[in-house]
Amino acid sequence: MTTTRTQVCIIGGGPSGLLLSQILHRAGVDTIVLERRNRDYVLGRIRAGVLEGGTMQMLRDAGVGARMDAEGFVHSGTYVATRNRGFRVDFQAMTGKQVIVYGQTEVTKDLYDARDAMGGTVIHDAADVAIHDAGGTPHVTYRRDGAQHRVDCDWIAGCDGFHGVSRKAIPDDVLRTTEQVYPFGWLGILSRTKPAAPELIYANHDRGFALASMRNDQLSRYYIQAPVDDPLDKWSDDAFWDELRRRLPDDVAQAMETGPSIEKSIAPLRSFVAEPMRWNRLFLVGDAAHIVPPTGAKGLNLAVSDVHYLSQALIEHYAGDDEGVARYSERALARVWKATRFSWWFTTLMHRFPDDGHFGQRMKQAEIDYLESSRAAQTVMAENYVGLPF
Amino acid sequence: MTTTRTQVCIIGGGPSGLLLSQILHRAGVDTIVLERRNRDYVLGRIRAGVLEGGTMQMLRDAGVGARMDAEGFVHSGTYVATRNRGFRVDFQAMTGKQVIVYGQTEVTKDLYDARDAMGGTVIHDAADVAIHDAGGTPHVTYRRDGAQHRVDCDWIAGCDGFHGVSRKAIPDDVLRTTEQVYPFGWLGILSRTKPAAPELIYANHDRGFALASMRNDQLSRYYIQAPVDDPLDKWSDDAFWDELRRRLPDDVAQAMETGPSIEKSIAPLRSFVAEPMRWNRLFLVGDAAHIVPPTGAKGLNLAVSDVHYLSQALIEHYAGDDEGVARYSERALARVWKATRFSWWFTTLMHRFPDDGHFGQRMKQAEIDYLESSRAAQTVMAENYVGLPF
Repeated sequence: MTTTRTQVCIIGGGPSGLLLSQILHRAGVDTIVLERRNRDYVLGRIRAGVLEGGTMQMLRDAGVGARMDAEGFVHSGTYVATRNRGFRVDFQAMTGKQVIVYGQTEVTKDLYDARDAMGGTVIHDAADVAIHDAGGTPHVTYRRDGAQHRVDCDWIAGCDGFHGVSRKAIPDDVLRTTEQVYPFGWLGILSRTKPAAPELIYANHDRGFALASMRNDQLSRYYIQAPVDDPLDKWSDDAFWDELRRRLPDDVAQAMETGPSIEKSIAPLRSFVAEPMRWNRLFLVGDAAHIVPPTGAKGLNLAVSDVHYLSQALIEHYAGDDEGVARYSERALARVWKATRFSWWFTTLMHRFPDDGHFGQRMKQAEIDYLESSRAAQTVMAENYVGLPF
Repeated sequence: MTTTRTQVCIIGGGPSGLLLSQILHRAGVDTIVLERRNRDYVLGRIRAGVLEGGTMQMLRDAGVGARMDAEGFVHSGTYVATRNRGFRVDFQAMTGKQVIVYGQTEVTKDLYDARDAMGGTVIHDAADVAIHDAGGTPHVTYRRDGAQHRVDCDWIAGCDGFHGVSRKAIPDDVLRTTEQVYPFGWLGILSRTKPAAPELIYANHDRGFALASMRNDQLSRYYIQAPVDDPLDKWSDDAFWDELRRRLPDDVAQAMETGPSIEKSIAPLRSFVAEPMRWNRLFLVGDAAHIVPPTGAKGLNLAVSDVHYLSQALIEHYAGDDEGVARYSERALARVWKATRFSWWFTTLMHRFPDDGHFGQRMKQAEIDYLESSRAAQTVMAENYVGLPF
């Protein structure tokens, strides 16, 4: 067994773990990042890529914003479509803020490059990661290349996602969870086609939700609400495009460029919150503590706001002030609950649920009509979409 | 059989029928109002009394606003309470508008006085009112003092409430209805006590909703969510006050003046919309076409906005322009659906439902916390509460 010592042991080498490592390193706090997979696997994961203004600023402040600013696509609004028509919610006009379309994969790549450049320690292929004595003398063990390793540390940051080990290290009688699994999934494809519109189109349709999104001006990402247990081979590319066209306004559907899919998958939708987000010397960050459905693209942005609160807390700790550590869970959760509410609201509004009933459907129609007519309602949507303040 | 002729036969002598008659009379359009009950019965009905700015202006324009302006209580905000604390939503600051507390009974009385002063025809105790040939040569028949009477007219305005005959006169294959019955009722008492607060308090509590309201500075009206089939004798005054105190913030509960109830009742909560609101020469107005739950006090105000659209349509008709008649249903319903949405939203947010579940409860908490923190969210609530524009 080899033993290493660091100040903060970060479990998980996705964007939140890497960003936390990067920010702490720049502030002189030492970290080790343990990642179960290899780098290619991590960079191969396809995720959404709408970044809030606060997320952009965090990346810039961490010294990893240059390529995002050069290559990302700034969106100052989004379209909401229903009953064969649509309207635009102007984020810029309502809030003075924008979002940027820049894939999570690209963010992760930029973070790896920055960690490499600064000589940060990111250990890949770390198997059987285990958390020990988070209530006392915290340390983390893992296996790599057939050998057992140990990291002694002051703090453990659990950035290892919904299925990771970190949340499970908190005793059952401490952890409270809140969960809703939605009765449908998102069937998504990626295609080398020109996006249907310069900004995202969220479509509410009697047949179910659809989303026209993009990675860049030659790479489109489309989703339709579908039964989560639908076999993928039921959905040929033609079947997908036909169904998508039905759910978008006619003018969009007719002008839309289609082509072969280069990726196709069905993902479940879930809301999940675990409380508290700190247990003694263990912190939970991002998906390890909370999951939102993808409507509104809050997942990565919430992880980044957790990193904001946690990095500040740890930097303050090493400067002699423990208030940030003591309040991390409360501060992070206040924002988590608001984003969970927004993601639930937007998902509920835009999708068809089996138990909507006629009344429920009419209320959704009325809410979308009201949203179209009210500047205040559009401001509520916009301020949540661009991100509530940290 | 006696036969009379008028331009507009109004069925129902409640506030919407009387206001329509008053406005049309002042514009030179002749009406007859038929009311099934006697005047004392109509004036004895206890209803809510929060009037929107648009309602106030309608009453003033109809020449019946003087006593309201002299005796009503202007409210420029309301309190939202939850988890033993509360915050104020400032209507005036958010929208520049206010509401006035002035009982529906008082509005009705002022309208009767005005109809009397102008010599308007209001026929009480009209039994067996029946609508004939609304698609051709409309006329209305009724029985009074043992005799059969007939009113020939150009138009019939159905202002006769949810249980009236007007809506039933529209063929089943024309009328579409949307309905939700809520799984609880409002247990309300009236007491000669000083109100708990100068403005209304809407309280969300784990035990259920509560509302602290008032008629004037010596007459309080309180409600608590309760099973709609609870026998009233289960609820002694003491039991009511005890339960109310539990659901209000401690400081309000401790300072609240209590006393014997002078009225006590349980009312069901329902959302209901009938479409269209015109069938040939028959119009539906107010509760005859739509019901909202009382949370947010939209019922009377919606009836008044229907009267706004209909009175304008009929005045324009007699000036040779039928566009208002053709568009009455569409215009009225656009506002009806928005108010139905608001009333449903506010009811859902503030009440406990049997199927909320843990997730649903947390979403309500998160929404109230967000409402407290966001000026945009408070503006959405305020603009709906003070009334969306006609």
